[in-house]
Parts: sequence; structure tokens; C-alpha cells
Amino acid sequence: MSASVHHVLTVLRDSFTHHALSTEAGELESHAVDKGPLEHWQVHAPLAVVFAESAQDVQKLVRLSAEHGFPVITRGAGTSVSGGANTTAGSVVLNLTRMNRILAMRAEDEVAVVEPGVINADLNTAAAEHGLMYAPDPASYRTSTIGGNVATNAGGLRCAKYGVTRDSVLALDVVLADGTLIHTGQATFKGVAGYDLTSLFVGSEGTLGIVVGVTVRLRHLSRHTETIAAFFGELTTAAQGVLDIGRARVQPAITELLDHRTMLALDEAQGSDLAQRGNTLLLIQTDGHGASIEAEIIRKVLSGLGAEVSAPGSTESERLIELRRHARGDGIVTEVRVGEDVAVPRSRLVDYIRAIEDLAEEHQVQLKVVAHAGDGNLHPTFSVPSSEIEPLAGPEPSAQDRESDDDGASSQTVSALSRLHAALDGSVRIALEMGGTITGEHGIGTYKLRWLSWEQSAEVIELQRSIKNVFDPDHRLNPGRAIL
Amino acid sequence: MSASVHHVLTVLRDSFTHHALSTEAGELESHAVDKGPLEHWQVHAPLAVVFAESAQDVQKLVRLSAEHGFPVITRGAGTSVSGGANTTAGSVVLNLTRMNRILAMRAEDEVAVVEPGVINADLNTAAAEHGLMYAPDPASYRTSTIGGNVATNAGGLRCAKYGVTRDSVLALDVVLADGTLIHTGQATFKGVAGYDLTSLFVGSEGTLGIVVGVTVRLRHLSRHTETIAAFFGELTTAAQGVLDIGRARVQPAITELLDHRTMLALDEAQGSDLAQRGNTLLLIQTDGHGASIEAEIIRKVLSGLGAEVSAPGSTESERLIELRRHARGDGIVTEVRVGEDVAVPRSRLVDYIRAIEDLAEEHQVQLKVVAHAGDGNLHPTFSVPSSEIEPLAGPEPSAQDRESDDDGASSQTVSALSRLHAALDGSVRIALEMGGTITGEHGIGTYKLRWLSWEQSAEVIELQRSIKNVFDPDHRLNPGRAIL
Repeated sequence: MSASVHHVLTVLRDSFTHHALSTEAGELESHAVDKGPLEHWQVHAPLAVVFAESAQDVQKLVRLSAEHGFPVITRGAGTSVSGGANTTAGSVVLNLTRMNRILAMRAEDEVAVVEPGVINADLNTAAAEHGLMYAPDPASYRTSTIGGNVATNAGGLRCAKYGVTRDSVLALDVVLADGTLIHTGQATFKGVAGYDLTSLFVGSEGTLGIVVGVTVRLRHLSRHTETIAAFFGELTTAAQGVLDIGRARVQPAITELLDHRTMLALDEAQGSDLAQRGNTLLLIQTDGHGASIEAEIIRKVLSGLGAEVSAPGSTESERLIELRRHARGDGIVTEVRVGEDVAVPRSRLVDYIRAIEDLAEEHQVQLKVVAHAGDGNLHPTFSVPSSEIEPLAGPEPSAQDRESDDDGASSQTVSALSRLHAALDGSVRIALEMGGTITGEHGIGTYKLRWLSWEQSAEVIELQRSIKNVFDPDHRLNPGRAIL
Repeated sequence: MSASVHHVLTVLRDSFTHHALSTEAGELESHAVDKGPLEHWQVHAPLAVVFAESAQDVQKLVRLSAEHGFPVITRGAGTSVSGGANTTAGSVVLNLTRMNRILAMRAEDEVAVVEPGVINADLNTAAAEHGLMYAPDPASYRTSTIGGNVATNAGGLRCAKYGVTRDSVLALDVVLADGTLIHTGQATFKGVAGYDLTSLFVGSEGTLGIVVGVTVRLRHLSRHTETIAAFFGELTTAAQGVLDIGRARVQPAITELLDHRTMLALDEAQGSDLAQRGNTLLLIQTDGHGASIEAEIIRKVLSGLGAEVSAPGSTESERLIELRRHARGDGIVTEVRVGEDVAVPRSRLVDYIRAIEDLAEEHQVQLKVVAHAGDGNLHPTFSVPSSEIEPLAGPEPSAQDRESDDDGASSQTVSALSRLHAALDGSVRIALEMGGTITGEHGIGTYKLRWLSWEQSAEVIELQRSIKNVFDPDHRLNPGRAIL
């Protein structure tokens, strides 16, 4: 242990109670990485983990960071799939999950004020008592925190109708890099005083300040929803169905598209027979007072295209939506996979899926696709069998180390990873060529930094750097992510 | 004319055609101010007006501005009611109204790309051909431009359901202070690559860059709407009705509250009898496939509170909504008035209106109130009879000049204006005390600068200054507005 590390640890122990500070090896390891792919990342265990219980704790840590020069990696539940919470060398992790109080639930104003560690599902449970909901619903909603959702501007299934996290955040309390606590935004639905600092913090992945309080807008929890499952013989027809629903001027709360391989994977995991019933599955949910009218229009539109459409009141459709929410396949250990998160104009859905199917074939990688089809946000998952490469889960040597150190197995290793990366790179390029973006809702984190300059011009990259320098000139807050 | 002014004009004449440049006195005068109150403003005619027809024209002017050090005041239709387009000394006005092309209408993607000078209503007309609408609908929608709407993050009647301008802007093309043209955001509904520069530009009142292209999200134009007029004996009951509609989980597209004095003013202008039929009027519109169901629930809720509620299919209600859209009373020349734009948590609507009624009485000023009640955004208009003060319309000497120059009438002048300002100041303070904001949708402009530090902390003000310095270090783009 170097003298400076020793000094930082001494200072931390002097400042935080035993309960609030951990340097235990297992804790450090579990805080070193999140749920993102690791093959581009050099894992460093943090020096320590601080479990803040108040904004004052956060301010204290940030001031120590300023004084002693260590980076602070802020973390909620660590559910980022982009490496947004991976630690960097010599850093201290700030864990906000103990700041999990709902400070206010103002049902008449349809507004709540929460600490950043509140779990998305817990806020929804509390809001539901008042007939309200917090709309953004990332797949991780049962475990991810509102603070983490704010950091990544998280999306979810309901976004085409209800917007993303940014659209539900009215105001923020933020600890700046010098320890100052500021308040941005307003508690009202509208407000245009000064620059929109609130939106600037949302999605900035903790690189501009540490969010310690969030004022959110709630929405009406629908008393009635209708869910439709529609099986199509062809992907093309299913995508046409999505556009035709729009043309019928129906805005579903949820419009999920599952390709055939996703259906097969669900069948394997659940013992269902989805893949026998069609090539592509659309799962659609309508809500609000017009839910039944809208569902009826949708059933008619999709039946007209030849789909096998579930009857009104089908309970299978409801169950399929829940399955879809948890369709990441994290349990599967026989393959190494990277889930992508591009978005394209939704009229290009078919073109995009066709193009990446070709890509998968070209590079001999497996591909399955689910899409939030209503907003053109796709999650293609590319994978190669684990048997072809070293396991990638958990801390590991960097790719560089591995290449130089490995023995005869390395040519196959490099080859499988290279194929995977070639497919990923290609899928991102195609999304950009179609007028899309490299990340619809997961964020850049550390994993997607290498693609950012494909989307952003040098001038935009430079502007972002200048903004970072205004907020965090010493680059101590979540350095090395979100921007180049 | 000073040598430097002469030089600037020579340079402009060398750079722009006669058609694109005006130094004609009437043109300069009409470009000196917008529709905001002027009593705090020293009016300066600009040196010239440049009518840009392309991003290249804008870049050319901005580069000349950088070279020769003159400020550029960018302007759309000049409908700001906050003095956002008022000119400063030695400035050149950049008029963008000729950049009025709709560049793309991608109906299947529900996206359009427009130049900044496109009139809000024209975009809506074009979108309507595809069954779509551009949702933000400021009262000025027939004349104001999308660029101006973006600059102020304009609101409107439909915001509680469909969001404000920021929620409809996906991407921007912006000319920076050094003439660089950048693109921010993405053409898809979702996108989280890097910092949200798009939202930072929206509402920044042209102080960070000049928007020359706007990619907007369109929404479904409802095929069916229902409009309800409900007359209440008491303001309190009407406000309760707004909350009860929320509690019934109905989200109307429009929820306007008109107080008795507004009803009287409409009667006077239109020959109607609204004021005899109740003390407070709620105008509500539902849309979408559930419009009839929702309207039925609303009628039941409001009838239950004792309101006189219009029958289904009432054409009067539709007409009243249109009247409300144009209720600013600009034509009335017998009073000097300032329309306010605060927002409060909507559960405080009654408290707020009661408090400013007391305030109006205390300061002996007239008050009428309309509110976008669904989102707590109020437009109280305070006025004093013109007979008590000098007319304030059009360019005029500053308040300071007037005070020192005026003869015996000045004591009455000061007195009436002082009363008006005391009431305005009080109304703003009360909104803040209730957890509200000084501006819901009109922007700070130049007129509300004096209130900004009441809402924002010194640290937030400083952060905004630092951001301004990143984008426009020489303060040549719309200086002296939006931030302190």
C-alpha cells in the first residue's frame, strides 16, 4: 500500500464511522464493476466504499476528494449495462443506496421528492397507493435506483407514451465537485427560469455533480390496461403493424417487438411454445380511459395484416409482458454476449434488423433482437459460445494482457472476440447511417466511449469537455465515462 | 455616427445584399423591441437588421460579430412578452423569419425538421395533413416561430398532457459564437449519448448559440375532442374541480381557469354573458380515443361540485377555448398592464389567487387571472388606468429619464407605476414562497431579470455564467437576458 493510499484511508476512517465505510475485500470487489461488458475494461478495486446516509455525508466525501485528490465513483444499485459504475484506479466508491427515503409524496400535485437511493419499484409502490405511477420503467426497475436512473436518463418500456427519465424529473439537489449543494429546476410541471441545468445533470452519468435529491413528476396509474399478443409470420409485417398502429393514431403505453430467436430463448427458459406460433411477436399494452377502444383498433389493424392476435382479456399476453421485462438472459452462462441499445427512426426498424441479421451471419455470431418498437429503440444481443473464449464475468486481466500472456488458445480467443466486436461495431455504424444513435437509454458509460466519436462531432466533444471543466475541473467525479 | 458604427455598417453592406440588410429607420424601430413591458428598459434602435435565409448567412453574421465586436440580437416574430428580443446598444438584429422552410415531414417516424422561422401554426397545418400535430401551443402560435418557441422553451395550453417545447425537441442545428455549426441530439425519441446539449439550448433565449434547424417530435392529432365549459359560483370550487379531475385519473389536453374579471373582459369584448353565469369558468378539452369517456367523467365530477356544466357537443365551449387563446387583451389601450407567468404547485392555485387578490386590493391595481390550471401555470394580469401614467407602448425614454424630465404629473406617474410594480413584485414573491417559479413558460428575457436572484442561488447564477462563458465568452449573443 502506497503512502498516499494509506493517507487517504486514514482520512476516511477519521471522517466516517465504521458503519459508513468499508475496506473489506469482498465489498471492494463487488463495488468494482457493474453489469456492463468487461472485455474493454481494466478492473481496479476501489480503495474504499463510503455508504452515505445524507447529503452531508456526500459533501464531506467530495470535500475530502478535493483536498486529497482521489476520484469518487458514485453508484446506486450498480445495474448499469454500460460500465457507468466501473471504478477507476485509486478511486473511492460512493454508494448511495442507503439514501432511500421518499421525502414527500404530494399526490394532489402529482409530484414526489426522493433521495437517490430509492428503488424505482419502491417509488412506484408508494405512488400506487395514490393511484399514481413513476413512468420510466427500465428493465431493472425492481432493483435500480432513481439516482441511477437519473444518471443514465433511463428509458424503459413505457417511454414512447410517457417519455424518458428526463421528462419526469422536475428538480434536483446536487452536490458539486467543491462540495457545494445546489438546487436546480422547480417543483412545478413548467418552469423556464435560466438554463435547464436539471436536464444537463440528467444523463450526465454523475460526471458533473452528485444527485442527492430528485423531485419527480408522477403520472396517472391506469385503472385498466389491455394487453395484446400478436404473432406474425414475418418480421416485415410485424414492423408494418407498428407503423399502422401509429397511423391509426393509437399511442400504446408499450409496444415490444421480439424476434424469433428471442421467442426460442423464452420457450427454452419457460417451457412455452411461442416460436411455433410465429416468426415475430408484438406485445402491446394500452392504458387510460380509452384502453379498450384503443385495444380494439389495434386488434383490428394487426388482424388485417394476417397476425394471430390474442382475444380480449387474454391473460397470456399479460404474462408475456412480464417475461419480456426480464428477457436479458443473464442466467445463461454458455455464451458471452453483449446487449446493444441503438435507436433508429422507427420506419427503419425492418431495414435495421435485416442489416444486423446479415452482419451476424457474416461474422458468425448469434443474434437475437428485442425492440421498444414504438420509439425505435432496439436491443440486439450478439453472442458467441463461451466454449470459444475465456469466461468474461468478474475482474480479469485486460484484453491486452490476455493477448500477450495467453498460450495456444489465444488465436481462437481473439478470433471469437474479434468476431463479436466486428458485429457490434457494424451494428452501431449501421444505426448511425440510418439516422439513429449509439445509445437510446443505457448511456455511454465506459463501454461505449469508443463509439461516441462516430456519433458526435469534434466540436460537440470539445463543448462537452468544456462543460465538464466548468463543473469538475480536476475530473474527480466519475472520471472517464459519458463523454470523450 | 461614430467611426466604429460606420465601419460596422460598411462591413455589413459589403457582406450582405440590399435585400438581406436593412438600415431603414422604420425597420430599425420595429426591430428594437418585442411585446414585453418596457418600463424597465432603455430602448436602443439597432444598427441594422440582417434577414438571414440560410445557416451560412447566420454563420457569416456571427463571424463578423466576432471580428468587429458587435452584439447580435436574434429574433423570430418578436412575440416575446418578457423582452427577450429587445435590442441592446450597438447591436445588429438577426431576423430569422425568412428561414421558414419545413425541411422534412417524416410522418411514419412522427418527426419533422424545420428551419427556425417556421410559424408554429404553419408547422401544425403541415403536420395535420398527416394526422399529426406539433403539441406546444403558446397563445402566439399563429404568429410565433418555432425558433422563438425553442429559445423560450414555450409552453401553451396543451402542456400538462403533452409537455413543453423541450419535450418536443429532439435535435438542433446551432451556430456557435465563433460561427461553427454543430448538431446536437438525435432524430429518434430516445437518445442518451453525452450531455443533453439540446435541452441546454432550449430555453436559453439565444444566449448560447443561434438555432438554425430544429428536429421536432410530432404527436397524434386527435380525430375527436370534447370541450366542456363549467361555471362555478366560487373560485375555490373550481380549483377543487381541477384536483378532482386529476383524482379521477383523467388527464385533459386543456384545463383553463378564468376568473370573474377575465369573464367580464371577454363579455365586454365579445358581447357575451359569461360573467352572469358564474364567478369562475373552467374550460376543459379531452382528446384521444377515450375523449368521450373522459369528458363524461369530468362532467360528472364537476356537476357533483355544483357547477353549471355544458352538455355534450356544446359548440359554445369550443368557441370559448378559441376566445381564451386570444384573451391577452392587447387591443385595450385604456390601461397599462403587465401579464405575469408564475407557476405554483397546482394544489396551491386557490391560495395563490386569493393572495394576489389581496395584493391587488392593497396596492389599488386591477387584476384578472387566467391559468393553465392543469399545470399550475398562472397568468395574472395587473393593470393601472393609462390615464394615471404616460403611455408605455413603443420606444420611449427610460423610466429614469422620464422621472427627471417630467413636470408636475410625475408624482402621479411614479405612484401608479410604483403600485403596479409593488403588486408584481409581491405576486412573484408569493409564488416562490408557495414552492413555485417566477416564469412557467414566457422566459426571463430582460424584464424578469430583477426577480431571478429571488429564485436562484448565487451558486446556480455563477454556474450559469460559467456556462455562458464557455459558449459565448465575449457575450455577443443576446447579451443581458435569460441569466444574471
